[in-house]
Amino acid sequence: MSNKKPVLYTSLSPALLKLYEIKQSIVVIIDVLRATSTIATALSNGAKEVIPVDSVDECIRIGKQMRAITAGERDGKVAEGLQYGNSPFEYPASFIENKTLVLTTTNGTKLLHMALTNGANEIITGSFANIDAVCEYLIKSGKPVLLACAAWKDRVNIEDTLFAGAVINKIESYFEIDCDASKIAHRTYQDASADLYEYMKKQNATHFQRLSKFGLEKDIKHCLTNNTAPVLPIYKEGKLTKG
Amino acid sequence: MSNKKPVLYTSLSPALLKLYEIKQSIVVIIDVLRATSTIATALSNGAKEVIPVDSVDECIRIGKQMRAITAGERDGKVAEGLQYGNSPFEYPASFIENKTLVLTTTNGTKLLHMALTNGANEIITGSFANIDAVCEYLIKSGKPVLLACAAWKDRVNIEDTLFAGAVINKIESYFEIDCDASKIAHRTYQDASADLYEYMKKQNATHFQRLSKFGLEKDIKHCLTNNTAPVLPIYKEGKLTKG
Repeated sequence: MSNKKPVLYTSLSPALLKLYEIKQSIVVIIDVLRATSTIATALSNGAKEVIPVDSVDECIRIGKQMRAITAGERDGKVAEGLQYGNSPFEYPASFIENKTLVLTTTNGTKLLHMALTNGANEIITGSFANIDAVCEYLIKSGKPVLLACAAWKDRVNIEDTLFAGAVINKIESYFEIDCDASKIAHRTYQDASADLYEYMKKQNATHFQRLSKFGLEKDIKHCLTNNTAPVLPIYKEGKLTKG
Repeated sequence: MSNKKPVLYTSLSPALLKLYEIKQSIVVIIDVLRATSTIATALSNGAKEVIPVDSVDECIRIGKQMRAITAGERDGKVAEGLQYGNSPFEYPASFIENKTLVLTTTNGTKLLHMALTNGANEIITGSFANIDAVCEYLIKSGKPVLLACAAWKDRVNIEDTLFAGAVINKIESYFEIDCDASKIAHRTYQDASADLYEYMKKQNATHFQRLSKFGLEKDIKHCLTNNTAPVLPIYKEGKLTKG
């Protein structure tokens, strides 16, 4: 067995994904506000599966076909033709247990499909809600890792960068990290770690503005809290299920 | 006259350039190690002009045609067929005064041409060597600004991010900055500002490794020092000249 540590890279935007080795890596899809937080929450609360889809039309079509719950937002509102939104608070156990959730989001689900198109063989989703489950899995697997930030319409954002940095902060000793983006993410997390919510607020992060405009500070706070949904969502054959 | 401040954005990689408004903006090309540091140094030391070109072949062709000095490196060595390298120390006044330098580099000159292709109308180059000249010009012009990092083969790097952050640190009060990448760059600079060289070393930045492998720590130090070449390189009709 080789003593060499596996490599870890961070892609700060979907537009940078193509630069990284993806086929042999575990790709961690990161969309903290709020897709991957909601995926972890729904699965943690007993959802049978979450089906991430690219578009509202596809969401409606698959929702009908599977008699599943459909969810997705566009511009801060439940998209026309869908039933629910992107907030983790919409998916308590009393509602989501044993159900299938078909979810479309602006950035996270798109990035997941982009990773697939680029040849990813192993995809999981990460968020503060399930950070320890993600980190334990990455350490245990011993494979190369690509932390893939969903960003906002390809623009680098603070919250996904913070999560990449938080993961690196926990697992850096297990990996070889020769990647400036990872180092920037790590330092950004260390800068913010005393209070992630206050940091997002003080920096007036673009997504902080977007969500607080809709009164969703509660969502932001929840999505920046560790281990509220301690599961590992693994993508296989079109579905995310608990690993 | 409007009281609204002009906007400022940061593109952390050439692969992200397309996301930003470029036609109405002053685009600052940033390739700290070492293209834009060398451009400032050559012009500050009296070079008549610097002609940035995409490829070694083009560099040879234009060099011959203009009887100019040709320069460029590939993989840390002077490229075959060219005369000089990328180090600012190669261009003292005694050598470069009144001469034309035709320069090709891996990232900086490529980004400059990409900006042109994308419709940029006003391009300058920035580096720590000429940071105050750049900042004064940006403040005075009152136009939107795009800080465009050359990065390394599209991968985000620390040194160009640091320079974007250093500029923001100086001029933020004159601009509206609603851009997470700018905020990350700004905080990264503040984190590093006590000693940029030590920061690059401690973080083991990829370009720090690359250059120190060739014994070029002296170049790194010089390229992280403020105002050693206090000029404003402005691009017009294929040439960079002192503004």
